Amino acid sequence: MSSFVRTCIKRMRAYVPGEQPADISVIKLNTNENPYPPSPAVLQALKRINADMLRRYPAPECKILRAVIAKVHRCLPEQVFVGNGSDEILALCSRAFVEDSGRIAFFEPSYSLYPVLARIRNVRFRAIPLGQDFSWPDSPQKMHAAGSADLFYMTNPNAPTGVLYPKQEVARLCKCFAGVVVLDEAYVDFASKNCLDLALKLKNTLVLRTLSKSYSLAGLRVGYAIGSKELIAALFKIKDSYNVDAVGQSLAAAAIKDQAYMRANVRRITATRRKLGRALAALGFVVLPSDANFVFARPTRINAENLYRRLRERNILVRYFAGKETRDFLRITVGTDEQINKLLKAVAALQRSEVRGQKSLTDTRTYRLGQAGARIK
Amino acid sequence: MSSFVRTCIKRMRAYVPGEQPADISVIKLNTNENPYPPSPAVLQALKRINADMLRRYPAPECKILRAVIAKVHRCLPEQVFVGNGSDEILALCSRAFVEDSGRIAFFEPSYSLYPVLARIRNVRFRAIPLGQDFSWPDSPQKMHAAGSADLFYMTNPNAPTGVLYPKQEVARLCKCFAGVVVLDEAYVDFASKNCLDLALKLKNTLVLRTLSKSYSLAGLRVGYAIGSKELIAALFKIKDSYNVDAVGQSLAAAAIKDQAYMRANVRRITATRRKLGRALAALGFVVLPSDANFVFARPTRINAENLYRRLRERNILVRYFAGKETRDFLRITVGTDEQINKLLKAVAALQRSEVRGQKSLTDTRTYRLGQAGARIK
Repeated sequence: MSSFVRTCIKRMRAYVPGEQPADISVIKLNTNENPYPPSPAVLQALKRINADMLRRYPAPECKILRAVIAKVHRCLPEQVFVGNGSDEILALCSRAFVEDSGRIAFFEPSYSLYPVLARIRNVRFRAIPLGQDFSWPDSPQKMHAAGSADLFYMTNPNAPTGVLYPKQEVARLCKCFAGVVVLDEAYVDFASKNCLDLALKLKNTLVLRTLSKSYSLAGLRVGYAIGSKELIAALFKIKDSYNVDAVGQSLAAAAIKDQAYMRANVRRITATRRKLGRALAALGFVVLPSDANFVFARPTRINAENLYRRLRERNILVRYFAGKETRDFLRITVGTDEQINKLLKAVAALQRSEVRGQKSLTDTRTYRLGQAGARIK
Repeated sequence: MSSFVRTCIKRMRAYVPGEQPADISVIKLNTNENPYPPSPAVLQALKRINADMLRRYPAPECKILRAVIAKVHRCLPEQVFVGNGSDEILALCSRAFVEDSGRIAFFEPSYSLYPVLARIRNVRFRAIPLGQDFSWPDSPQKMHAAGSADLFYMTNPNAPTGVLYPKQEVARLCKCFAGVVVLDEAYVDFASKNCLDLALKLKNTLVLRTLSKSYSLAGLRVGYAIGSKELIAALFKIKDSYNVDAVGQSLAAAAIKDQAYMRANVRRITATRRKLGRALAALGFVVLPSDANFVFARPTRINAENLYRRLRERNILVRYFAGKETRDFLRITVGTDEQINKLLKAVAALQRSEVRGQKSLTDTRTYRLGQAGARIK
């Protein structure tokens, strides 16, 4: 690459998002999109977009949208920041809260964007190994490594595992951590608990939410952060002038006002998640407990990467992560019942042909399934 | 501010964009929006946005839109990057092309975002004074100061002055500059010349364009960069995964395909610009030659800041910049003929009452008006 490019950027590898095929006949269970359309109120708001809204700059501080968000979460608009997707907010946090000599901490495995953000900032990072079954780290020594970091990124429920961390552990970390804790709650509407109260109470904690999952608006790019006025003000200070477009602001406000619609879709998805978990277990998968709109599961009768590829040949996309901790698993988005049935049928067929072709893979690792198994509702 | 915020962010002041009043009865000549609606093809594309486009993630690399842009500019899609407004691309350039120990250069006065971007990156910057009447610097010594910079931001035609730099001087700078030159051509569709060929030829030069001005799509947030594959690839490497939303991609493609509509609007606006320049000159203003969709002009019969405030009281917004070089001027967006007539009427009335109230301000500075005056067509 050209010598015009900054050294740390030349050296790094870009984050690779999940495939977005143009072919809409593909069964797309790879990027945790919502299988149901956004609220009818969103489509009504879309009809109200006019030439003047396109022609003029959008509200630079998203005042109306922030008031809507503040009302839903019972906080002040000054505690709310809106971004061009929560990805933009994650990146802004790396610029607002980390000194040039500082450090970023996060769990591993988690959102694989975190080390990329550290590399773009040219700061060090510390990846803290999770405990067994990707649960909260089982030794205080592991957490100690985060001590000197300026920023802790935590996806909760975690991705790609779907595991929700115990709230008291999260609270304890936030309270004793010297820097800023960013709790990315992208999937939290599908979970049994959230940590919004921590962000409203503690000066060093931000909660991030997105419209991409529970509100079915991944195409729009709207996410938001909630936390102390000081942290929020720092994000405002460094954002692009008009970071959220006029269409996004208007449609997001309509979506958030319709909480009942969102909740109803979440109930449908968690019901399908329960079915999917049970059916995968019946097919021999080890299924992690999920509090998200996806399931992270390990096939035992067929190699995970092979299964991913074979499903892809059949126009069914799921997500495969090649890392050491994750390479035996597939992350499967909870689609409609119909999509899930097609997936399960394909998996069963592929496993049958696999068994005929070669002997079953031996399971060399064990996973606690006690509480975890019980949690797949 | 809280100690959780990075030191350089605590110290800096945010960029302040022009006012965006919710009241649409205001005559808004302060942020260089296009007074005419976007192409009918854009409104047709808006009607085609459906629930599936909102529900799914957008194309992460804007492939279709980039092909449309590449076709219009006769280059390869690999030479095109699309951003969430050209502001996002300016910020990405500060992260892709400037070492932590590096420096950013730009002319002064110019887009006042540039020093803010340097402060967010915590790198030094060099503001190079322009020549007389805000023209290209009149001494090689001034340009010499840029020598050690990694990145040179240049708005051309410049903002807030509207002045277009001589192309041979721009080309000479690009060829001898050791770092990357970013030519922000946000206003170039209103100008007599552009520098796209430099970006397609030189390895260190990027040209930035926006849909916010000539295409009447400020509400959408779409801008793009054109240049060598190496520079473009570096921007892709560090962008947010889905930096441009699905609606923006679709509507921008429709707008760019309709070049005839854009050109016709540009002709209307440059015709109004000519009228506005002549009328302001008749009211005693010193009017700089404009190649943009705004006019930068110095009132001589009334104080500029006072005029700005008095116009504001009458629901007419223009832009006032308090800096030493700019505080005697107003930047006035070229609106419709009707808007401009209302502005001129208000200015004339305010000047008359000013003359009655106090004696006319003495003009203590002189401006070359020869070529400049002739250029206000």
